[in-house]
Amino acid sequence: MLVTDNISHLRTARWADPRATWGLVPTMGFLHEGHLALVRAAKTANDYVAVSIYVNPTQFAPTEDLSTYPRDLERDLALLRAAGVDLVFTPSNEMMYPAGFQTRVEVTEITRYLEGVSRPTHFAGVTLVVAKLFNIIQPTRAYFGQKDAQQVAVLRRMVQDLNFNLELVVCPIVREPDGLAMSSRNKYLAGAERQAALVLRRALDAAEAAVASGQTDAEAIRAEMRGLIAAEPLAKLDYVSIADAQTLVEVEEIAGERLVSLAVFIGRTRLIDNVIIHR
Amino acid sequence: MLVTDNISHLRTARWADPRATWGLVPTMGFLHEGHLALVRAAKTANDYVAVSIYVNPTQFAPTEDLSTYPRDLERDLALLRAAGVDLVFTPSNEMMYPAGFQTRVEVTEITRYLEGVSRPTHFAGVTLVVAKLFNIIQPTRAYFGQKDAQQVAVLRRMVQDLNFNLELVVCPIVREPDGLAMSSRNKYLAGAERQAALVLRRALDAAEAAVASGQTDAEAIRAEMRGLIAAEPLAKLDYVSIADAQTLVEVEEIAGERLVSLAVFIGRTRLIDNVIIHR
Repeated sequence: MLVTDNISHLRTARWADPRATWGLVPTMGFLHEGHLALVRAAKTANDYVAVSIYVNPTQFAPTEDLSTYPRDLERDLALLRAAGVDLVFTPSNEMMYPAGFQTRVEVTEITRYLEGVSRPTHFAGVTLVVAKLFNIIQPTRAYFGQKDAQQVAVLRRMVQDLNFNLELVVCPIVREPDGLAMSSRNKYLAGAERQAALVLRRALDAAEAAVASGQTDAEAIRAEMRGLIAAEPLAKLDYVSIADAQTLVEVEEIAGERLVSLAVFIGRTRLIDNVIIHR
Repeated sequence: MLVTDNISHLRTARWADPRATWGLVPTMGFLHEGHLALVRAAKTANDYVAVSIYVNPTQFAPTEDLSTYPRDLERDLALLRAAGVDLVFTPSNEMMYPAGFQTRVEVTEITRYLEGVSRPTHFAGVTLVVAKLFNIIQPTRAYFGQKDAQQVAVLRRMVQDLNFNLELVVCPIVREPDGLAMSSRNKYLAGAERQAALVLRRALDAAEAAVASGQTDAEAIRAEMRGLIAAEPLAKLDYVSIADAQTLVEVEEIAGERLVSLAVFIGRTRLIDNVIIHR
């Protein structure tokens, strides 16, 4: 397994056999089963697998948790080695954003909703770093988790609009046995917060059950979800959304493909979760 | 010579031999000797040469000459066939910017000066379409003319910041025998305007002569250039600039690498020209 922060070395490995297919799994490290499921999907479909580990500063607002974001490179590399990964790219901030850097890559509309309301600069950072990683590694396929549903929609738009020559593959959310969606930020949950965090999944379950029982009024479902969050003392709601799965615009009716998503603070930790509903 | 607007067909040809090198010459068509010099440079250094012909609407302001920009596809294709070009990409607006398109690629600082003052949206259109063309064709090398000096600086910045895996090659300005820089827009020059247009080159010659004779005060040289433009009745100055060749910031002293550039309206036709001075 080649571990490098050197783009020239990376490209030599990447293009040693120009007919080989490569899967890329971009990560911010502190890997969990969700990341490893992406790696396994990439292993199955490609000749080689590259993983990037980079806590990208441009996708954090000044008020967010950049400095405390959990890191454990040694453990990450052991996991990736065991998973049979071929190449790990571990760039520095100085390499990614050297003095004089002044280029932006932005998706302008679907970034305004959901996460974009409380994190207005977040997706510009994501699209910028992912565009760079795509150009550095030039993968055949790139793997992302459905956990970050809006990120997936934004990157799909970017790939299409900028004609990146790759396939974007989205893998299902991986959950703890009790239903909590895997996230590196789950590490922040202390004591009773871990149990309280299950309220996100309970709210999504309630939405699915309501639709299964014939409820088609989106606002009634949102109200029920808000009620469940309000009933959990350690939880503070950021948003509940039922939106068109493509445009991310809020809907009135459950019809076609809907993205049900929410963001909730559990103590000081902000968690997100979602489910796609078809009807 | 494959002429296509189909990205899938193009990629099949591009990647038939993945070890082959490809040169790309992006153009807006209505080809002149300047374009053909880029094609010849690309032929010399690469196994295959692709040319794109696309009058990109996003780099024109609503007040500019998008609708009247000269076009002659049949003549262009004959010239490219004779020059031994392998592939010509001729996309439509609907393919390049389909409904729902919403991605931006921008270089934020060096786009503010020179052309950016009177054309504030121009370079965002250029970087967007060139990023798309780079991803569509994935050339080994891409060729641009020094005539558009700021465009070259902006694209160099974009390639570096976004880690495009290609070499940007800049070729010298090609001129008519009397010194007028070749441009598709020269077609607009009617009657006495063609002769008046030589004032751009005279102003640059005067700047070079001043530096050769020991003048190091940039403002004195700008003043001399402005005087020459003012003396030409059909000319109206947009700007005269003597700037750092990398940052494009105006300088006080001639020292190191300086970009001397100007934009002048000859009648209703806006022309640009430039020279790099080392001292």
